[in-house]
Amino acid sequence: MPTLAQEDFEMTPTEKRALRLIVDQALDASKDKNRNGIVAAIVSGEDIVGIAENEVNAFSDPTKHAEMVVIAAVTQSLDRKQLEECTLISSLQPCEMCLSAMRFAGIRRLIFCARQESVDPKYFVFPKLRIRDFQRAGEPFAYISGVLENELLHLYMDGDE
Amino acid sequence: MPTLAQEDFEMTPTEKRALRLIVDQALDASKDKNRNGIVAAIVSGEDIVGIAENEVNAFSDPTKHAEMVVIAAVTQSLDRKQLEECTLISSLQPCEMCLSAMRFAGIRRLIFCARQESVDPKYFVFPKLRIRDFQRAGEPFAYISGVLENELLHLYMDGDE
Repeated sequence: MPTLAQEDFEMTPTEKRALRLIVDQALDASKDKNRNGIVAAIVSGEDIVGIAENEVNAFSDPTKHAEMVVIAAVTQSLDRKQLEECTLISSLQPCEMCLSAMRFAGIRRLIFCARQESVDPKYFVFPKLRIRDFQRAGEPFAYISGVLENELLHLYMDGDE
Repeated sequence: MPTLAQEDFEMTPTEKRALRLIVDQALDASKDKNRNGIVAAIVSGEDIVGIAENEVNAFSDPTKHAEMVVIAAVTQSLDRKQLEECTLISSLQPCEMCLSAMRFAGIRRLIFCARQESVDPKYFVFPKLRIRDFQRAGEPFAYISGVLENELLHLYMDGDE
């Protein structure tokens, strides 16, 4: 069966469960005009240790991407800056800011649904640099992309999630 | 007189005043083991609209770089996501995360003191990409780098600010 996914590793059952949760929450949030339909989670072993929505419009704050909110929440609640055993999961490909935050948190394992090449350009600020460029530019990380993309693409194609 | 600075534009009197403030605050913060000696400010016209310190250690949160904290504070307090008329000023070259946040906030004018090539590598996560690569990879922004670097370099050379 053909697949959209780029797969650097195999997903664990907990990662699959988190993925289902964030896709459903993103679809749900997109129906509410006060929320943004972008959701991220952090998985540690068999635990989903955090789930957060994009809060950019809620706070008029461009730094409040879902991945930033969940990394901040989990590191603060665990009182440690490094989440090196964790996986970051997002309904939309992490932008350059979120990808950097992921690496500052020591995370090396990433799963996301909608890919940059499928969505509105507004979600990225350095579009000539792609995720493979970042992957080659620092310490290694692995990712799975495009999984369940078809369920969410209508949210991100026109940037009106 | 030789200068370390790369200068894309001329600083305004308010930008110079903000720069002096953040350098002094960074030197002050570095003497306190509970604070990080990295400080950022945002200038709008003749006003310094925000100053913030790095709060990574204070909150065990790797997203709390000084630039992130000040962009979040100013956008939230002004209740607008775009600061397109503003200048971001930092005591240390903004990392990849902060540079992206700057552009998501619409800021196109940047001034910083200590440059990447002069400081500990730990402040950056994609070291093969330099600021000129980011400058070529998206919408234009201009910067002044290396100004007052000599006053602060001892804080960042060994990453123990």
